[in-house]
Amino acid sequence: MSDSHSREAAAALDAEDPLGAFRDQFVIDPRVVYLDGNSLGCLPRATVARLERLVTEWGDRGVRGWDEGWLDLPLEVGDRLGAAALGAAPGQTIIGDSTTVCFYKLVCAALDARPGRREIVTDLDNFPTDRYVLEGVARARDLRLVWLDGDPETVTSVIGPQTALVTFSHVSYRSARIADMAAINASVESAGALMLWDLSHSAGSVPISLDGDHAPLAVGCTYKYLNGGPGAPAYMYVRHELQRELSQPIWGWLGRRDPFEMAPGYEAASGVRGFLSGTPPVLALAAVDEGVRTVAEAGIDAIRAKGIALTELAIGLADESGIRVASPRDPARRGAHVALAHPEARALCAGLIERGVIPDFRRPDVIRFGFSPLTTRFVDVWDGVEALRTLLAA
Amino acid sequence: MSDSHSREAAAALDAEDPLGAFRDQFVIDPRVVYLDGNSLGCLPRATVARLERLVTEWGDRGVRGWDEGWLDLPLEVGDRLGAAALGAAPGQTIIGDSTTVCFYKLVCAALDARPGRREIVTDLDNFPTDRYVLEGVARARDLRLVWLDGDPETVTSVIGPQTALVTFSHVSYRSARIADMAAINASVESAGALMLWDLSHSAGSVPISLDGDHAPLAVGCTYKYLNGGPGAPAYMYVRHELQRELSQPIWGWLGRRDPFEMAPGYEAASGVRGFLSGTPPVLALAAVDEGVRTVAEAGIDAIRAKGIALTELAIGLADESGIRVASPRDPARRGAHVALAHPEARALCAGLIERGVIPDFRRPDVIRFGFSPLTTRFVDVWDGVEALRTLLAA
Repeated sequence: MSDSHSREAAAALDAEDPLGAFRDQFVIDPRVVYLDGNSLGCLPRATVARLERLVTEWGDRGVRGWDEGWLDLPLEVGDRLGAAALGAAPGQTIIGDSTTVCFYKLVCAALDARPGRREIVTDLDNFPTDRYVLEGVARARDLRLVWLDGDPETVTSVIGPQTALVTFSHVSYRSARIADMAAINASVESAGALMLWDLSHSAGSVPISLDGDHAPLAVGCTYKYLNGGPGAPAYMYVRHELQRELSQPIWGWLGRRDPFEMAPGYEAASGVRGFLSGTPPVLALAAVDEGVRTVAEAGIDAIRAKGIALTELAIGLADESGIRVASPRDPARRGAHVALAHPEARALCAGLIERGVIPDFRRPDVIRFGFSPLTTRFVDVWDGVEALRTLLAA
Repeated sequence: MSDSHSREAAAALDAEDPLGAFRDQFVIDPRVVYLDGNSLGCLPRATVARLERLVTEWGDRGVRGWDEGWLDLPLEVGDRLGAAALGAAPGQTIIGDSTTVCFYKLVCAALDARPGRREIVTDLDNFPTDRYVLEGVARARDLRLVWLDGDPETVTSVIGPQTALVTFSHVSYRSARIADMAAINASVESAGALMLWDLSHSAGSVPISLDGDHAPLAVGCTYKYLNGGPGAPAYMYVRHELQRELSQPIWGWLGRRDPFEMAPGYEAASGVRGFLSGTPPVLALAAVDEGVRTVAEAGIDAIRAKGIALTELAIGLADESGIRVASPRDPARRGAHVALAHPEARALCAGLIERGVIPDFRRPDVIRFGFSPLTTRFVDVWDGVEALRTLLAA
């Protein structure tokens, strides 16, 4: 193994890492090599204290907490997330509901805004819950679901006057490939359709410029690189100009003007608040806020730089060990995880977990090493690939 | 004031209260008279510890937590809730999503199961978010929304071969009137329609027998009498026999068979699990579990007996003070809150809050005193009505 690929070299990178100190802000089990922060991010220590404070508010203030800040959390934390990780100016991002429900709401909103058009475009590489939601909506509305067989940028080959909605993941959950957001937005817009991004595998790891790239709609989860906790609520982004035009399908009281008037007749609240439905999940929102704050503190550009360095190291080590890399080799087109392909991937993942390395298996043949730049060290990358190499040699 | 209506008499009732010790299991601000547990229930002390444990699990186990219990929480806590408060045998109740989203899902599921029928029946006394959801769905599907003007039991006057769905609150959020669940279920079933109950203002305060009363569908929130915390996730009940027939509209990965296979093509999981959509809100589910456990420990019959005693006392005191009671006088038809009507209700509520008594204003003219039998004392009832009497006398 070349010197630059030794564990000592990896440790030297950690010693120089400008984000190295952030790891201490998280609770991390020292006995494992955690390479799954893109499935569930680590626990920020600040979250422990924040949840204690929130629970104390509940105990002390009871129902008065709603008027003392809780009701504003979906928009406030959304704005902070927008600034820290989405390239979104205030008033366009809200948090609440699961990613699945957020995605459903914006799919329906987009389709309702393009009546008469009969097609939805996505790709087979989209995250499962998105694919399933689209199947359900397409069946309910008798629309055609067009499965793009190729990179998202080839969407121009299938869009046209029948296209109502196009939706892709910004970073592929399997390969980590980054789609060209600006170009795809422009193509979809020129076809008169609406574009909906799933940012679950990119937000908090890759710079995103929803405003700058003129994205109309986006959703994403907060429990991966945003470290919001298991099952943390998701976000929706609805571009300012579309907030009047679009209407979401689940008309709940928190999306209504003056919800506590409890008046007859639904009238959507103005702005992005009109895309809320039910009562905000306050405990979980407080946890998301802390995860977002940490990303803001580190800065997305520094996070991105380390994400590239971590994945470059992993790919270099994999190449040296003869492990097939199934992620893009161009770092500019690759998110913060690396897909390593092997026919025995499922068994290899089980073997890694036995040895204290936590990856993800992604069918049919991918071992996914997820690197979370705020918590993953270069030696973790080294240890992970080394454990895989050892397993393969056995 | 008669002796039986003195504060001393109320204190004597507290001294004899078999549930009196439960108050110590909650965090309660001693400076306020909290009469809003039917809006947001108090914090169980056990929840503080449970959330700490859950957060520790997240820190220690990371993504492995999903296979070590988290994934089962929606069904497990659902079953425990079903046993403690809903009269529901296992395998019919799940927790996740907001009440609004749960309601939407079951409304759509019911309508899809009654194709060709063009009418939805509800009443103006239904909780606002339910009314708004129904308006949205009726508009999207071009259905007629029939507003029953009268008690829910008069539903027979408006249902017929066009009725697809009937939905009421079991306990009215304003008047506390209890609808006759068994009779209404039978009427709706005989019309070939489906009945959907909102149990938000009854579960945990009034015995419910979903199985025994042959209820097809129900939803409800967990942050009122179930003390699950601000914005805690809601539950759905889908009767065993209907689980194959009905399909919910938001086809997410957690409702799919073998979700982590991430395979192409949605196939609903069998049983009530097929009604899940997105990733379960684990932190919030743990909190709900503790609230449910406390209700189970106290027993719903004891809770109900105290709820009747508390509301009887409030009504007696209100009568003596000349305050108009807008809740049913028959305790068998009344939940655990009392509506007191006055043209100046809004200002009176503000005045009460200034004096440390926390009620709810419900437009146009209701002061709502909510009694949570696990935390509300008889002297709290006395202090609340006395504060109102003093305000009125001033």
